[in-house]
Amino acid sequence: MAQLTHWDRLVRYVSAKDGHVRYGEPILDDTYNIDQQIEAGAVLKVRVLEGSSALTAMRTDEEDEIQQLLSPLAPAEVPIVRCTGLNYRSHIAESGFDYPQYPTLFIKPNQTIANTREPIPIPKLAQARCDYEGELTILIGKDAKNVSEAVALDYVAGYVVGNDVSCRDWQLDKAKAGMIQQWCFSKSFDKYAPLGPAIVSTKVLGDATGLRIRTYVNGELRQDSNTSDLLFGVKKLVSFLSTGQTLEAGSLIMSGTPGGVGAAMKPKPQFLANGDEVVVEIEGIGTLRNMMQFE
Amino acid sequence: MAQLTHWDRLVRYVSAKDGHVRYGEPILDDTYNIDQQIEAGAVLKVRVLEGSSALTAMRTDEEDEIQQLLSPLAPAEVPIVRCTGLNYRSHIAESGFDYPQYPTLFIKPNQTIANTREPIPIPKLAQARCDYEGELTILIGKDAKNVSEAVALDYVAGYVVGNDVSCRDWQLDKAKAGMIQQWCFSKSFDKYAPLGPAIVSTKVLGDATGLRIRTYVNGELRQDSNTSDLLFGVKKLVSFLSTGQTLEAGSLIMSGTPGGVGAAMKPKPQFLANGDEVVVEIEGIGTLRNMMQFE
Repeated sequence: MAQLTHWDRLVRYVSAKDGHVRYGEPILDDTYNIDQQIEAGAVLKVRVLEGSSALTAMRTDEEDEIQQLLSPLAPAEVPIVRCTGLNYRSHIAESGFDYPQYPTLFIKPNQTIANTREPIPIPKLAQARCDYEGELTILIGKDAKNVSEAVALDYVAGYVVGNDVSCRDWQLDKAKAGMIQQWCFSKSFDKYAPLGPAIVSTKVLGDATGLRIRTYVNGELRQDSNTSDLLFGVKKLVSFLSTGQTLEAGSLIMSGTPGGVGAAMKPKPQFLANGDEVVVEIEGIGTLRNMMQFE
Repeated sequence: MAQLTHWDRLVRYVSAKDGHVRYGEPILDDTYNIDQQIEAGAVLKVRVLEGSSALTAMRTDEEDEIQQLLSPLAPAEVPIVRCTGLNYRSHIAESGFDYPQYPTLFIKPNQTIANTREPIPIPKLAQARCDYEGELTILIGKDAKNVSEAVALDYVAGYVVGNDVSCRDWQLDKAKAGMIQQWCFSKSFDKYAPLGPAIVSTKVLGDATGLRIRTYVNGELRQDSNTSDLLFGVKKLVSFLSTGQTLEAGSLIMSGTPGGVGAAMKPKPQFLANGDEVVVEIEGIGTLRNMMQFE
């Protein structure tokens, strides 16, 4: 098991005491749900973690209180966001594809990273067919290249909840997508990868199997699955994607989304409108909440 | 016209005097071809540029000599490498596609960057159907978002020669590519984006139209085109790709490759073998030279 971090759970936050941005380790109630504790109006206490990045942050004895949660990783800490298409069996089925033999890779730039509760700006050209994709997101803890499945977890620092916001219009429309689909363009608008509320370490979650993952739109349950439905799990993803390609420390892998995306709803697709709130919740990690703000 | 840099041409190099890595501005012969000057055995002299990055480097009066040319940008200076598929009319034709209505985006991580004359490691899984793509590569000089074509050049610092090394097997094979093609995976192996020999500023090259671009394999001419054959030129690419997405200072845009790739050769495709040398030359910029090294 990886011992890549000095903490079990990490948040990045604006301090209620002095307004500074810090890393911290939540001091938990009996039930762990950072987001719900904040929602209930309880002040969330943390033990301050000191360091220039999430991966190097060390425990201190200092206590602090959160004013605002930020994405646990600042965009500048993340070299790149790798993403996996078509990985939950339920999503592959609803998309009408056969099971792929290998993971499908696409890439988002790090300026897609946004905080929980931060509005996601939806540019004019991407307002047709705006969709959510709740995803278990993997944080690479040290440079990984040609790593076997057997040792893959030694390179994984932890997990965070992500939403791979997607414009189906640019992704799938023949005139716009051309002969190859525009997966990179349609999913790489600024702030299209909100992350939160915390990174939970591999020490706590292991290979992250068996975790319930749910997505709600304005309170309505849309995705309700389990990470055990992943066709390619965490070890396989890290091993395959590291073949001939260095997965840098601090980089992320979004592992794909379960069935229940807006584009696949019956009897007809349901896309996101201005002001819609998307909540993604993964058991053992917490809740990520973002409102879509049409520009 | 952009005035984003203090230099006209920039190289990054190992100094023949003290072995340090520096930026410099070549002191040119009458005919400007950095690579040929080095090949001829002439010591290439530079005026040292001082700064922590190519974009901020300032002229000094100090002269120096090059021992080894490096990629003009260190990988860490480059947030991301955006790439354009199917952009030269001749390459769209040989690939059997209609002209797309919009540029096609895919992305390479910054660890794909390699030096001129550095061997490109070709991993075992990517040795079938290894191919070259000579490309005019655009350096963004300051953060660009929602930039119109009229002002797009104000955000372009300069141009460099690139080779978008590609594994056609993973890009196109149905079993591997799945239903969406693996453009990101097949082109993102470490060092699959060699860059060189120099960045030539927008002050010198303007919008980079009218430049002859040629690619040779073991001395045999394979691609022979002109940047005027680009369907979407530099201004259009920067404007379109900046729509809702920040093109960060230091990031690159590879603008696509002309007709003549190995995969499209008649009567049958000609792929790269172990030890093959690929030379990409763009008029006014110089020559990029790399040997393929099968692992």
